[in-house]
Amino acid sequence: MTNKKEIIAGIIIIGNEVLSGRTKDINTSSIALWLNSLGIETKEVRVIPDDKKKIIDTVNELRKIYDYIFTTGGIGPTHDDITAESISEAFSLDYGFHKEAFSILENYYKPGEFTEGRQKMAKMPTTAKLILNPSSGAPGFYVKNVFCLPGVPSILQSMLGGLNNVLIGGDPIISKTLNLRTVESEIAKSLSNVQIQNVEVEIGSYPFFRAGKLGVSIVLRSKDKKKIEQCNDQILKFVKAKNIEILREI
Amino acid sequence: MTNKKEIIAGIIIIGNEVLSGRTKDINTSSIALWLNSLGIETKEVRVIPDDKKKIIDTVNELRKIYDYIFTTGGIGPTHDDITAESISEAFSLDYGFHKEAFSILENYYKPGEFTEGRQKMAKMPTTAKLILNPSSGAPGFYVKNVFCLPGVPSILQSMLGGLNNVLIGGDPIISKTLNLRTVESEIAKSLSNVQIQNVEVEIGSYPFFRAGKLGVSIVLRSKDKKKIEQCNDQILKFVKAKNIEILREI
Repeated sequence: MTNKKEIIAGIIIIGNEVLSGRTKDINTSSIALWLNSLGIETKEVRVIPDDKKKIIDTVNELRKIYDYIFTTGGIGPTHDDITAESISEAFSLDYGFHKEAFSILENYYKPGEFTEGRQKMAKMPTTAKLILNPSSGAPGFYVKNVFCLPGVPSILQSMLGGLNNVLIGGDPIISKTLNLRTVESEIAKSLSNVQIQNVEVEIGSYPFFRAGKLGVSIVLRSKDKKKIEQCNDQILKFVKAKNIEILREI
Repeated sequence: MTNKKEIIAGIIIIGNEVLSGRTKDINTSSIALWLNSLGIETKEVRVIPDDKKKIIDTVNELRKIYDYIFTTGGIGPTHDDITAESISEAFSLDYGFHKEAFSILENYYKPGEFTEGRQKMAKMPTTAKLILNPSSGAPGFYVKNVFCLPGVPSILQSMLGGLNNVLIGGDPIISKTLNLRTVESEIAKSLSNVQIQNVEVEIGSYPFFRAGKLGVSIVLRSKDKKKIEQCNDQILKFVKAKNIEILREI
């Protein structure tokens, strides 16, 4: 094992549509799974309104706590898209046309179609670095450790890969899931004993009710594969002793 | 119109499974939609790990800012369920068996099945008030303005209705959605003008890409139905002038 330090991230979901309940956020899951693969752990998510002061305060608070911050939403062309302006203010940077972004968008649209509305998408901190958008032209951007992505899930997903070489990751986090035909209270004590003996493995226990069937998913997470295996063996021991069925699929 | 003040809420999702990306949070949406129907606006959501200090700090920070706080997750029987203990500490209350909760669970299980693991679900701040659980026995609880609900979506959903008469709501928030066959940049300027003229209506603009079709959903939200209608009429005016198709379904 190398001895890299833990790299941690925060996510800020900017959008009234999530707070109103109208839209279910799936960007957190996309970003967190991708960060996991780079060895970066997501430690906190905040969902906040399209409110400039709230965006600035949240970004300035979290960027000091976490190695990386990802924002989603608010970088489109409409009046409620205020992320780029807010980030400029958070870092006391000029907000205006970003030369490279302007040129990307100018080339992306047919002559005459790069309207005033679309030009707004080239406005951001003028010294920001761009996050290229392979699916719909308009780039995201980053300033220091704050990465600003769009809110539309498919576009956001298409942009993450472009950052793989920009982020400095840690050891990848490995996870193993064990699905059991049981209820949590049946295994709580045994599982607690295993957790005490395996402090470097995070053991999560999640009941599920699917297709009318009850069960529990046990999720083991660690940077050390060997420790996951040891922990898994100890769980299998009490699972066998208790005569609990292991499920291949749930 | 009555003159009730704005009632605002915060949601705290407690769970490593959401931060790892493994589980997509849908509890925010359930709680926010239900709160909307009571005239309560969700202003912030935080997703945090199963970490006692983080839970205590977040609860103590947010309960002073918002009228109501809802937590989800961490009230089951396993070692990673630490919400009840954390809430006790946040309010400096005794953590132990709650008489009424113990008696509910004792009656719920068959004789001999109310095991030590299950008994843990009756442990909480001993003076908390209960939130009844019509679907699986184990109650949630609340202390002052902090309401603690389970993480399993179907159970959580079954418990919300029991709180309708406990919460003091505001005027219901009304929303109206208009789905247009257009792109955001096409309507950005006109929509911005309408927003300037209708400051009491929150106008959200959300592009969608479904079944290979592009469009924009315009969502109007306000406590005043008349103002929504006025705003809607102004939008329809420019939609007609621009010859944009209105979609009945997306």
